[in-house]
Amino acid sequence: MGRLIVVGGSAAGMAAAAKAKRMDPSMEVIVFEKNGFVSYAPCGIPYYIEGLVGNIDELVYYRLDYFREKRGIDVRIHHLVTDIDVDKKLVYVTDKKTGRTSKLEYDKLMLATGGRPIKPDIKGIDLEGIHTLRSLEDGERLKKDVIKSNVIGIVGGGYIGVEVAEAVRKLGKRVLLFEMLDHIMPTFDKEAALPIEEELKKNHVELHLNEKVVEFIGNDRVTKVVTEKGSYKVDTVLLAVGVRPNIELAKRIGIELGETGAIKVNEYMRTNIEDIYAGGDNTETVHLVTGKPTYIPLAPAANKMGRVAGENIAGGKAKFPGVVGTSITKAFNLEVGKTGFSLKEALEHGFDAVAVDIRHGSKSHYYPGFSKLNLRLVADRETHRVLGGQITGYEGVLARVNTLAAVITARMTTDELKMLDLAYAPPFAPVWDILIVAANVIEKQF
Amino acid sequence: MGRLIVVGGSAAGMAAAAKAKRMDPSMEVIVFEKNGFVSYAPCGIPYYIEGLVGNIDELVYYRLDYFREKRGIDVRIHHLVTDIDVDKKLVYVTDKKTGRTSKLEYDKLMLATGGRPIKPDIKGIDLEGIHTLRSLEDGERLKKDVIKSNVIGIVGGGYIGVEVAEAVRKLGKRVLLFEMLDHIMPTFDKEAALPIEEELKKNHVELHLNEKVVEFIGNDRVTKVVTEKGSYKVDTVLLAVGVRPNIELAKRIGIELGETGAIKVNEYMRTNIEDIYAGGDNTETVHLVTGKPTYIPLAPAANKMGRVAGENIAGGKAKFPGVVGTSITKAFNLEVGKTGFSLKEALEHGFDAVAVDIRHGSKSHYYPGFSKLNLRLVADRETHRVLGGQITGYEGVLARVNTLAAVITARMTTDELKMLDLAYAPPFAPVWDILIVAANVIEKQF
Repeated sequence: MGRLIVVGGSAAGMAAAAKAKRMDPSMEVIVFEKNGFVSYAPCGIPYYIEGLVGNIDELVYYRLDYFREKRGIDVRIHHLVTDIDVDKKLVYVTDKKTGRTSKLEYDKLMLATGGRPIKPDIKGIDLEGIHTLRSLEDGERLKKDVIKSNVIGIVGGGYIGVEVAEAVRKLGKRVLLFEMLDHIMPTFDKEAALPIEEELKKNHVELHLNEKVVEFIGNDRVTKVVTEKGSYKVDTVLLAVGVRPNIELAKRIGIELGETGAIKVNEYMRTNIEDIYAGGDNTETVHLVTGKPTYIPLAPAANKMGRVAGENIAGGKAKFPGVVGTSITKAFNLEVGKTGFSLKEALEHGFDAVAVDIRHGSKSHYYPGFSKLNLRLVADRETHRVLGGQITGYEGVLARVNTLAAVITARMTTDELKMLDLAYAPPFAPVWDILIVAANVIEKQF
Repeated sequence: MGRLIVVGGSAAGMAAAAKAKRMDPSMEVIVFEKNGFVSYAPCGIPYYIEGLVGNIDELVYYRLDYFREKRGIDVRIHHLVTDIDVDKKLVYVTDKKTGRTSKLEYDKLMLATGGRPIKPDIKGIDLEGIHTLRSLEDGERLKKDVIKSNVIGIVGGGYIGVEVAEAVRKLGKRVLLFEMLDHIMPTFDKEAALPIEEELKKNHVELHLNEKVVEFIGNDRVTKVVTEKGSYKVDTVLLAVGVRPNIELAKRIGIELGETGAIKVNEYMRTNIEDIYAGGDNTETVHLVTGKPTYIPLAPAANKMGRVAGENIAGGKAKFPGVVGTSITKAFNLEVGKTGFSLKEALEHGFDAVAVDIRHGSKSHYYPGFSKLNLRLVADRETHRVLGGQITGYEGVLARVNTLAAVITARMTTDELKMLDLAYAPPFAPVWDILIVAANVIEKQF
C-alpha cells in the first residue's frame, strides 16, 4: 500500500522494486535512474569490449517496457534525485532531458544509489581519453576509444583491470597494466596471484607492478602515463582502482553511515530513518567470517539486499545475513576465484591464521584435458575454522570456490572439510578433491 | 608397531596401508590383493573402453614398486585371503599363482574386501559374453568382447550402465539399454532423469525402460536377451545392476554386519572384533541426512574410510562422519550430478519433503556457450532443511552438486541457501545462481 520510490535502477534498486510490487501489487512503485539503462549487467562490459557480446543491449536483463507493462513498475530513466525531505517524505527529482525538477511524496523509500569508480587525486586525471567503467554508457565510450587506439594504459590490477586487459589484448592492442602493489589482484595474497601474473604475461599484457601512477600528461587528451619509475605513451587510459559508495545524498539527509563509510543498515536493510531502506553498492554489510561490517560491492549481494529490502518494504520479515566475499573471474584461459579471506586479510583481522598452497589435478590424471588447480587455503590455527580460499586453474574453479563459500558460511573446520562428501568422476574431479587434500595438508601447520 | 595385514588392495585398503605406515613407520604393513592390480581407478574403465585412455595401466595411481620401495609396504597381488583365526590372530592366504597356502600373524587387521557386481538370478546368466565390471581385468575382457561385437546389451541404467553405453556408442556399436524401472538412473526421480534419457536417445542408445530381463539365450555364448516384452539379438552383454559388499569372510569369522548387510563399524572404522578394522565397499556408513546406516559404495568415501582406519590403526583418533551420497557422471555431453536424497528417497525416509524443478542458465545469457541447467531441489516442508539435489546440464554441474553437498552436510535450510554468497561472473554463473533461484522458488510449497 502506498508509494515506494526507488532511487537508482541497477541491481539493488530493481530487485527491491520488483519484489515489493510482487508482494504487494497495490503498491505504487516508481524507480528513478539517472542514466539511460536499468536492470543491466555492468560485469558484462568487458565481454562487450572484447566483442563476445555484439550489442550492448544484450547486457540488459529486462527492458523498460517489461517493467512498465508486465510488472507495473514506473521506471523513469534520465531522472536524477537531487534532494529528499525526510520530514515531509518528499523526493525532489530532475528530468535530465528537460531540466525540469518536480517533487513527489513517498511512503517508503529505497536508496539504491550504487557506487562509483574511485578517481584518485592524480595530476591530469580529467584529460580526455581517461575512462572509468561503471555504466553501459561508460562501456560504449571506452570501447569507441579503445578501437581507435594502439596502446591502452590500465591503472589498477583488480578484477576490472584484469578483465579489460584481456578484452583489449584480444582486440590486438598493446596493454600496459599499472598496479601500485607488488602483485596483481590486490585482494589476493601475492603467492596466490602468481599464476594470474603468468597468464597475463603469456598473453603479452605488459605488467608494471610496484608502480604508482603519479601523473597523466597530454593537451586535452591523454598521451602519457607517468609513474614513479617511468613515463609511457598511451592512447587511452582506464582507471580501475576500486569503487566507493554513492552516499552524498544519504549523508545530507541524515542517513547514518557505518565504519566502512557506506550506508549502515540493519539485517532488514532499514536505515536509521523511518521508512528509508538501502541496499547495493552504497551500503555496507556484515562479513560472515568476522561478524563485522564490510564493504564488498558485488552484484550477487546487491541483488539479494534489494530483494530483502523489497520484501520488508511490502511488510515482510526477510533478513540479509551478510557475505563471505565470493568472487570469480577469468584472465584469458585462467579461471580465478576467491572466497573468505586471504592470509593477509585474515591476519589483519586478528586471526591466528595459516595458509597452505596446493597444486592438484582438476580431474583424473588420465582423462583428456587434465590440468592442475592451485589452491591457497587459509584456516585458523586454534579453531581449525576455514577462513578463505584463493583458487586458480584452467577449469573447475567455480566448483571449488562455491563449495568453499558454503563451507565458510557454515563455519566448518578443516577437520570437517577433509571429510566432506564431494563428487568424484574422472571427467570432473580426482578422487581426492583439491579441497580435501588442502584440508589434510594444512593440519601440519596447526 | 607390530604387523598390519590389509585384506584387499583397492581404495580403502591402500589408503589404510599408506596412512598407517606414514604415521608409524615402524609398523610392518602387508597388503594381500586377490587380483593383479592395486591402487587403481575402476571408475576410469568406461573411458578405457571408449579409447580416451589408451592403456589400462594409466588407470593405476601408483605401481607396486612405488609401494614396496618408496613406502615400505609389502604388497602381494594374486594373493587370496581364505580364512582368519581371530583368536590366534592368524590370516590364511593362498598364492593364486602357485596354489600354496600359508599363514601369517597379525597385530591389526584391515578388511578392505570391497564389493562385487550383483549377479541376479536370471536364466542363462553364466553364458559366455555376459560381463560384469569391477576390476581392471574385467575392463580388459569387456573391451575385447565389445570390439568384436556389433550389438551390446546393457542391463541396468545406473552410473556404470550409462557410462558404458556412451563408451560403446562412441566405438560405433549398437547399444540396447535395459532398465526395469520406468526411468534411467534409479537413484534419481523420474522427472530429474528425463534430460538424461533425452541425451541417450539423441545419441542413439536404444532405451528399453520398464523392461525386466528374464533370460539370456545362447549355446556357450550369449546371443539373445529376453525381457518381459521382447527378445533382442546381442553379441555381448554387460550386467550393471548394482554392487553388493563382499562380507562372506567377515561374516564367517564373526564380524557383525549392519542393517544394510554390509560390515558395521563405529566412527573410528573399528568392527566388533578387537584389532579388526573395515572400510570401503564392504562397509556401511552413516547417511548424514538421516543419521542412519547406509550403503553407498563410492570411491571418495572408501578412500576416506581407509585413511581414517589407517590413522587409528597407527594409534590415532580420526573419525569418519558419514556421507551425503554425492556423485557425478556424464552421459555424452550431459553432466549429471546428485547429492543427498531424491524426493522419492526423502519421502521413503519419512521426511515431509517437497521438490521444485528449476531450469536456469549455467552462466550469463549473453556469454558464449550459455546453456540451461536443470535442478530438482528437495527440502523438508517443516524445517526447510535442504535434503537433496539432482542436477543435469551441459556445464557447471560439479559446482552446483558440490556446493549442495556442503549445504546438506552443514544442515542448512533453504532460507540459508537463498542467501549463500555464491560467485558470479558472466563466463561462469548468472547473478542469481540456480541454487539460489531454487531455494527461493521452493518456498511456495512450504
